Amino acid sequence: MSHPVTAGQTTPEQRLEALGLTLPTPAKPVAAYVPTRRVGNLVYVSGQIPMRNGALVASGPVPSAVGVELAIEAARQCALNALAAVKAEVGELSRVKHVVRLGVWVCSDAGFTEQPRVANGASELMMAVFGDAGRHCRAAVGSIALPLGATVEVEALVEVG
Amino acid sequence: MSHPVTAGQTTPEQRLEALGLTLPTPAKPVAAYVPTRRVGNLVYVSGQIPMRNGALVASGPVPSAVGVELAIEAARQCALNALAAVKAEVGELSRVKHVVRLGVWVCSDAGFTEQPRVANGASELMMAVFGDAGRHCRAAVGSIALPLGATVEVEALVEVG
Amino acid sequence: MSHPVTAGQTTPEQRLEALGLTLPTPAKPVAAYVPTRRVGNLVYVSGQIPMRNGALVASGPVPSAVGVELAIEAARQCALNALAAVKAEVGELSRVKHVVRLGVWVCSDAGFTEQPRVANGASELMMAVFGDAGRHCRAAVGSIALPLGATVEVEALVEVG
Repeated sequence: MSHPVTAGQTTPEQRLEALGLTLPTPAKPVAAYVPTRRVGNLVYVSGQIPMRNGALVASGPVPSAVGVELAIEAARQCALNALAAVKAEVGELSRVKHVVRLGVWVCSDAGFTEQPRVANGASELMMAVFGDAGRHCRAAVGSIALPLGATVEVEALVEVG
Repeated sequence: MSHPVTAGQTTPEQRLEALGLTLPTPAKPVAAYVPTRRVGNLVYVSGQIPMRNGALVASGPVPSAVGVELAIEAARQCALNALAAVKAEVGELSRVKHVVRLGVWVCSDAGFTEQPRVANGASELMMAVFGDAGRHCRAAVGSIALPLGATVEVEALVEVG
Repeated sequence: MSHPVTAGQTTPEQRLEALGLTLPTPAKPVAAYVPTRRVGNLVYVSGQIPMRNGALVASGPVPSAVGVELAIEAARQCALNALAAVKAEVGELSRVKHVVRLGVWVCSDAGFTEQPRVANGASELMMAVFGDAGRHCRAAVGSIALPLGATVEVEALVEVG
């Protein structure tokens, strides 16, 4: 069965609420790019930074400016922002059949090697919200610098039913 | 209507000409990779660096070696080179139904945070050439170093009709 | 004819054997992501690091910690690990119709510009194993730091028949 929501008819939105998380208003299209682009059953999501209520959850490299725990929280915020963009595209998150891929960039000092632990902040949110349908491929990579000074950036690709 | 060219039958190639831009001869396949790979209606384009007439438009990191304005111009050249590759694959740029995604890497000093402004050089060219069909998803990311010392690298994914 | 294996019925697995290469046991799913995710005829493969028999082939940046030749070998190991993941997903590598895209990140010192040469370690393995079907799009990019300190990370996208 491909429908991701089976646990007592809980929707992904309800699971987010149970986690104490609120989907933000998706960022408006900026300049010449858009938050999402759909091709067939695939929804591409632009790189998301950890904005929450208009401010970055974390900025600067790990670990010199930001500790791993806060970076994990930032990755989770990026993923939440990606979900808001997906919901704006398809209406209800229960239409997500699979999360296919996350690209996670972590602003890193030279020698920092725990990008996977940081990226788990995004990946585990997808699992919590979608269950098995949230299990995805991932590339976690260090970056010298990210837009607006963000500590993490996450782009996503999801399959919708 | 999905066809991107509506303004008085102007073709993407004519829009490029009106911008004073010339599509370069696409780079020959180098070693074991190719400029484009088509899968169904999707055309993947390899990472493009800002070569123009055999030389890089800009090399080295922003801002210590290259200013933002020149980096924007380099991003635009990368996008132009990507369009040349797409045209070689599909014959006419009017066959492009949508630009789906751009991946933009900007060679950055630590602390540089204007990757989106640089990446707009690529994104805005897509808008100028394709109109609404040029609106795409994007990840803009800083990189410590890029091939041949390039200041920008752009990879693309487009949907063709 | 789309089937990649034509040379005397040699399978990709036999070509690997002729190269003296052994497909590793694919890495187990770690945390909330998976080695591969299939969507239609496309198989996405998570970023692979150059693990061989439980240890990294190379760690740290090129060239200060690792020379180019060893980095090439590391890229090849990443690609081999990606093939192991693909085989686990589809059963036989002869089902691969095309390698579509490789994303290759090379842990780089500032000023290192030979990411393409390093990435050829991965690209040339795909050619050796699949012939023309192994010719792919590629983005080769420098990174300040990669997971576990890896010198190279490779993600892949392949089309299966």
